[in-house]
Amino acid sequence: MKIVIVGAVAGGASAAARARRLDEDAEIVLFERGEAPSFANCGLPYYVGGVIQQREALLVAPKQRLVDRYRLDVRTRTEVTAIDREAKVVSVRNLETGEEYEQAYDKLILSPGASPLRPPIPGVDLPKVFTLRDLRDADQLHEIVQTAKHAVVIGAGFIGLEMAENLVHRGLKTTVVELADQILPPWDAEMVAPVAEYLQQKGIDLKLSDAAEAIEEDGQAMRVRLRSGQQVAADLVVMSVGVRPENALAVAAGLEVGPRGGIQVDGHMQTTDPDIYAVGDAVEVRHFVDGSPIQIPLGGPANRQGRIAADCIFGRDSTYRGTQGTAVVGIFDMVAAMTGHSEKVLASASHPYLKVYVHPKDHAGYYPGAESLTIKLLFSPDDGKILGAQVVGGKGVDKRIDVLAVALQAGMTVYDLEEMELAYAPQFGSAKDPVNMAGFVAAGVLRGDHPMQHVESLLGDAADQPPFILDVRSPAEFEAGHVPGAVNISVDELRNRLDELPKDQPIVAYCQVGMRGYLATRILMQRGFKVSNLGGGYTTYGAMVSSRGA
Amino acid sequence: MKIVIVGAVAGGASAAARARRLDEDAEIVLFERGEAPSFANCGLPYYVGGVIQQREALLVAPKQRLVDRYRLDVRTRTEVTAIDREAKVVSVRNLETGEEYEQAYDKLILSPGASPLRPPIPGVDLPKVFTLRDLRDADQLHEIVQTAKHAVVIGAGFIGLEMAENLVHRGLKTTVVELADQILPPWDAEMVAPVAEYLQQKGIDLKLSDAAEAIEEDGQAMRVRLRSGQQVAADLVVMSVGVRPENALAVAAGLEVGPRGGIQVDGHMQTTDPDIYAVGDAVEVRHFVDGSPIQIPLGGPANRQGRIAADCIFGRDSTYRGTQGTAVVGIFDMVAAMTGHSEKVLASASHPYLKVYVHPKDHAGYYPGAESLTIKLLFSPDDGKILGAQVVGGKGVDKRIDVLAVALQAGMTVYDLEEMELAYAPQFGSAKDPVNMAGFVAAGVLRGDHPMQHVESLLGDAADQPPFILDVRSPAEFEAGHVPGAVNISVDELRNRLDELPKDQPIVAYCQVGMRGYLATRILMQRGFKVSNLGGGYTTYGAMVSSRGA
Repeated sequence: MKIVIVGAVAGGASAAARARRLDEDAEIVLFERGEAPSFANCGLPYYVGGVIQQREALLVAPKQRLVDRYRLDVRTRTEVTAIDREAKVVSVRNLETGEEYEQAYDKLILSPGASPLRPPIPGVDLPKVFTLRDLRDADQLHEIVQTAKHAVVIGAGFIGLEMAENLVHRGLKTTVVELADQILPPWDAEMVAPVAEYLQQKGIDLKLSDAAEAIEEDGQAMRVRLRSGQQVAADLVVMSVGVRPENALAVAAGLEVGPRGGIQVDGHMQTTDPDIYAVGDAVEVRHFVDGSPIQIPLGGPANRQGRIAADCIFGRDSTYRGTQGTAVVGIFDMVAAMTGHSEKVLASASHPYLKVYVHPKDHAGYYPGAESLTIKLLFSPDDGKILGAQVVGGKGVDKRIDVLAVALQAGMTVYDLEEMELAYAPQFGSAKDPVNMAGFVAAGVLRGDHPMQHVESLLGDAADQPPFILDVRSPAEFEAGHVPGAVNISVDELRNRLDELPKDQPIVAYCQVGMRGYLATRILMQRGFKVSNLGGGYTTYGAMVSSRGA
Repeated sequence: MKIVIVGAVAGGASAAARARRLDEDAEIVLFERGEAPSFANCGLPYYVGGVIQQREALLVAPKQRLVDRYRLDVRTRTEVTAIDREAKVVSVRNLETGEEYEQAYDKLILSPGASPLRPPIPGVDLPKVFTLRDLRDADQLHEIVQTAKHAVVIGAGFIGLEMAENLVHRGLKTTVVELADQILPPWDAEMVAPVAEYLQQKGIDLKLSDAAEAIEEDGQAMRVRLRSGQQVAADLVVMSVGVRPENALAVAAGLEVGPRGGIQVDGHMQTTDPDIYAVGDAVEVRHFVDGSPIQIPLGGPANRQGRIAADCIFGRDSTYRGTQGTAVVGIFDMVAAMTGHSEKVLASASHPYLKVYVHPKDHAGYYPGAESLTIKLLFSPDDGKILGAQVVGGKGVDKRIDVLAVALQAGMTVYDLEEMELAYAPQFGSAKDPVNMAGFVAAGVLRGDHPMQHVESLLGDAADQPPFILDVRSPAEFEAGHVPGAVNISVDELRNRLDELPKDQPIVAYCQVGMRGYLATRILMQRGFKVSNLGGGYTTYGAMVSSRGA
């Protein structure tokens, strides 16, 4: 068996190692355009920023180890330029020597990855306008940040924000420009609004709803002209506006690609040619939640897909279940994580959903160092099945998204979240874990225990009859900030002051996070009021207002 | 509706709050023998140690808040002394005034908890021999640790070890005495052997397989005489040898209790009297994995049970699913966690199981600060269903046990662990998460990809034909320590040195953690050798040897 693999990072490297374990006698050729196979591409921003100090640390599986240990024929700085499906050979060029040759295959695995987009604006090809994909990019950035003073990052996705953090670590005055009206576009806007505020506290100049129109030379430096009319000085510019699947080889060979260019594969990672497999960032897969076609560049799925392709080549029945879109990004001390669908995706697909927000502490409040986190849970109105979740905060965010990702994978409902028996000691959690809390609130909504109103309904999406807004927090909390027009009666006094409330007007009760609002809602419901609880309380209100640019 | 609740911590407090939310008009009386309801009992050791500095932090839901917010009739320092089931009244005594009276109920919820055992040894009632259950105990310990120099902790379970850590924080020379031959008896011995070593590094004198036979006064101090003949000086002694369900009220009232004294309840937390519910550490519940009766004192289950009891009282169909035994304990910087059954429980129940060990890093090795952790996974040989898991290490242990606890709850298999899409960024995990790794290894065993041998088979449980032991690590690793009798051929050279291996003798291959051993096993299997991989490699070997007191 002659297996040829194009691309030796993540999916390609996993496929190669798996293939060797399955067959000692296979001939396995691994082509890699860059200088090194299996490098830590998720570590590149941290090498630029000096968090990772040794460049060698990025070489996760050095070439010689792949040769010695796995008997792989690893050919770096070598590009595959064409596929002849009929003859089952690929055309190859050695980028060092210029030598060209052909390589036959029985099975071909494409793992070419995705390449950073460079929008067609004037100046995008200036020498100090970078993208960050491989070691060479990282080396160049690593050098320039030693002396540069000002940086502009274009695009506030994962890589853009990780780069921004690391530029700040290097002492650069950093501006981030993002076309959307929020950072981290896969998340819902109100969830990442606190992260955006935090970036600004860290000294990053964040320009949302803006775009670079041109990059101009300005002596030794550059000047980035924005659509808003502003100009920002830059010693370097990092373009991180998204990636595009590397599909040129596949398209030229007549393999099917999806509407956004991802190579089409079935559950066995097989392309429309049964002798060619494709894995990783270059392919279009199914979303786990609803089977919709998606392209998400993620390391975990790429690795699993590589393994599955190798399994299938050797006749094993191994099937990819789809991608959930589980992702996490740490920026300074804040962490944003998600799994499954966001609200905006559900809404745009007209997929029925309900949502709740909770804002608990990551561990027992009585133990030092507890930090707040926010969970947004999206679930089916019919059966409570989990459709997606987002968690934002500091410590403990990655744990909760993993718990929720497994719950999603298992097809669990919000009722299952109520019953989860998670590990509790005061350093690590609470007897009622944040995930339990999200389950309690969501299940309570489905059971009709507390009708819920969302902040959006208070922000101009006007109802016929404006509600009576009831703030059930303490007077001190109320004084520190409240929803315009709200009346303050603390929950502890509520039962004695029912006569101050309207019997016919809808009441929206809220507190800081939703707990006291829930109790107030229970009290008032049982006394015949038309009441609902404001989802996520004043904390979600604040995030929503902030996300709308107020 | 008149609801009377006995015990106002965890389960009792949860039941009371839930009952109020369900019914504004219910009369809810909460009796608590101690000074405060709803205190943080899991925080007591940390208050003694000064980690939690403010005593008020322990009062999670102060009495007045329960009164104001939930309109509960909270009666602290008040003991319920008898239940008249016929008349549906309880007899009550005010511990401050001595006043005695009766209190009628429609529904009674027992949440009396469990009391620390005091073994009947001479001196156990000396004034400076403590247990740690309530605020009074904590206050006394908090005072004495300010001046004491030497402490003896008897019992190396959760509370014993948390106390030991906190006594060290206070600068006391601390000895821990444990009857078993391991610390943390719910875990399997080899998993916690590294924790025991760590305790010793931290200066704790750990005496396993030993017991206190007497505690004698010695001037102002005491002397603990051990079965081994040793004597240990102590200014204070903490007894933490286990707890016993507080079943006296229930037994006197003729309610059924189980063989170990736990009050018997059904899935609705209803005792054998339909008007009496019981929750928390005092009840016997079903184990989630196999339905066997168990008593496990845990905060999470107690809270959920309280909620379920209140639900059922108000006619809701709420059912407790059983306890998984998910637990975590942090001791200095080490963390031990578990869920489901341990190997020793499965073995003693003759429940068929397989096991694997993995020793991955908590996050990507190329990002600074990665720490090793160990996962032991127990699963069904038939279908790969997860039966239990233990995780020990530092950072990231709590996350992995929660992921595995949810997988257990969902009835997932090791094949599902392979496919888990967990959140990956280099600070938080790896593209192949430790849980994925455990799944890969376990599923590989079930698929027959790598026959596995466990360390036990090398430690005297002699086979007919002693195996050829093959160490496939580097010569440097081999030199630093190896299995007696092992021959060293590094995996990278293995293919060239096959003629040094016996064709007919079984071969056991091992490396440091099992990865290279797996590859070696694959190589040798395909070349016709009778080979197996040593589960968990030399790391598990070392832990197993250490756990056997070598």
